[in-house]
Amino acid sequence: MTIQTVSQNKSHGGMQGVYKHASRETRTDMTFSVFVPPHGKDAKLPVVFYLSGLTCTHANVTEKGEYRRACSELGLVFVAPDTSPRGADVPGDPKNAYDFGLGAGFYVDATEPPFAKNYRMWSYVTDELPKLVAEHFPVDPSRQSVLGHSMGGHGALTVALRNRDRYRAASAFAPIVAPSQVPWGIKALGGYLGDEKQAWRKHDTVALIEDGARFPEFLVDYGDADQFLNEQLRPELLKTACEKANIPLTLRRQSGYDHSYYFISTFMGDHLHWHATRLKS
Amino acid sequence: MTIQTVSQNKSHGGMQGVYKHASRETRTDMTFSVFVPPHGKDAKLPVVFYLSGLTCTHANVTEKGEYRRACSELGLVFVAPDTSPRGADVPGDPKNAYDFGLGAGFYVDATEPPFAKNYRMWSYVTDELPKLVAEHFPVDPSRQSVLGHSMGGHGALTVALRNRDRYRAASAFAPIVAPSQVPWGIKALGGYLGDEKQAWRKHDTVALIEDGARFPEFLVDYGDADQFLNEQLRPELLKTACEKANIPLTLRRQSGYDHSYYFISTFMGDHLHWHATRLKS
Repeated sequence: MTIQTVSQNKSHGGMQGVYKHASRETRTDMTFSVFVPPHGKDAKLPVVFYLSGLTCTHANVTEKGEYRRACSELGLVFVAPDTSPRGADVPGDPKNAYDFGLGAGFYVDATEPPFAKNYRMWSYVTDELPKLVAEHFPVDPSRQSVLGHSMGGHGALTVALRNRDRYRAASAFAPIVAPSQVPWGIKALGGYLGDEKQAWRKHDTVALIEDGARFPEFLVDYGDADQFLNEQLRPELLKTACEKANIPLTLRRQSGYDHSYYFISTFMGDHLHWHATRLKS
Repeated sequence: MTIQTVSQNKSHGGMQGVYKHASRETRTDMTFSVFVPPHGKDAKLPVVFYLSGLTCTHANVTEKGEYRRACSELGLVFVAPDTSPRGADVPGDPKNAYDFGLGAGFYVDATEPPFAKNYRMWSYVTDELPKLVAEHFPVDPSRQSVLGHSMGGHGALTVALRNRDRYRAASAFAPIVAPSQVPWGIKALGGYLGDEKQAWRKHDTVALIEDGARFPEFLVDYGDADQFLNEQLRPELLKTACEKANIPLTLRRQSGYDHSYYFISTFMGDHLHWHATRLKS
């Protein structure tokens, strides 16, 4: 698998790159960013995959996430994929809404036409991209973790729960935890997976836990000034599910913070330290 | 003087705001950002003014500068103005070039028509904006400093040299140090100030020092992979001028870094610590 370098900029002692490749899964070109911290020759570093939220590309967290300083201190590679396939031939939301289609892949493999052909973000982020990264960057595939924001927090938690042996840590900023029960999720899972709600459960963190999926522990931050908190995010549903399943959950309500990267960047360092501890143990 | 709040987002324990006001100097609305770190009631904090480079608005450094963590730790207010007046009635570059007119005010008060009416960025950043900030935010006007990038580094150094008593520290990332001698500066100073080169000298750091202006010390970082280094920035001219004038200059060549915010954000913390030491002494 070949990749094309879009840009490289030295930063915080490491190299922030943006790369493009022809994806087997999405049948489109996909762009992603990778930060490689300073490291010794022949080093194989732990790698954190960051899944972004609605409307984002790789660029939002790359520009505004403030992760490079911590990654350089901790020796972590940081990978940020796009949130959907893109291109003139890729179908989007019929009304060009922000919460479905382009920029809103929801980290599922769609089964419904016309989305099934390109919208394969589950396989992309869990299989194709990790292999591509392992092939081209100095990472240790046995030490990977995942975090995400909002729709990407949903992605991170579901990816971890269904791949317990492949991710050593998982955390989220303001995640959607029960897409089957909230408007964003109902629209997206219905559109990509069809009306049969049983098929949605493996893409719903709370449902996965109810159905027996487990992960060693989670760290979740949300802001109490988040405009999406009560309708779309509903962290209390995750709290209840984790309590019933005895999954240790560090759930932090951050006073005065909203849904933006001003919130994410504030706690990014905390999350990366938390990941590093688990990636290096 | 009244200001209008465009947005406020809690970040790193403080408040990142964007504000708008009708400027007396530019006769346009001007937008600027202010970060206020966590502070006690009735506190009056030191304030750092950041002057941006060509093509930028307040938004570039606000989103990509990674200054909030250090400002919160150090108790610094951080103010970022726009780089020119803007609006349908504001004249720009006749060919819409990026290096003159809109986004390229060069921190001068223009004397040439049609720019003299609106392009008054010198008076805006040295007088109107500091007063506005002192009126609306918890700052101590006796403890202010200035830093900037590229065109804004030029702004920071000239502002400091001509107002030695008002700024306690001045530093720059990849500044233009001798605009009278480089293409960007020759175009801008000629366009705003006319062909008489004597009038340019008070907006040229190297010329100001040659003409006797002094400042206690400067910190300047530049990247040796900066594409503008040899033609537009020419830090060696600043080094020579400071040596002749016995101005202590900490001039750091940063290996592998370019002209972007990936460079700036790497060394922003260093600069803010340097400013804080001098603002609090």
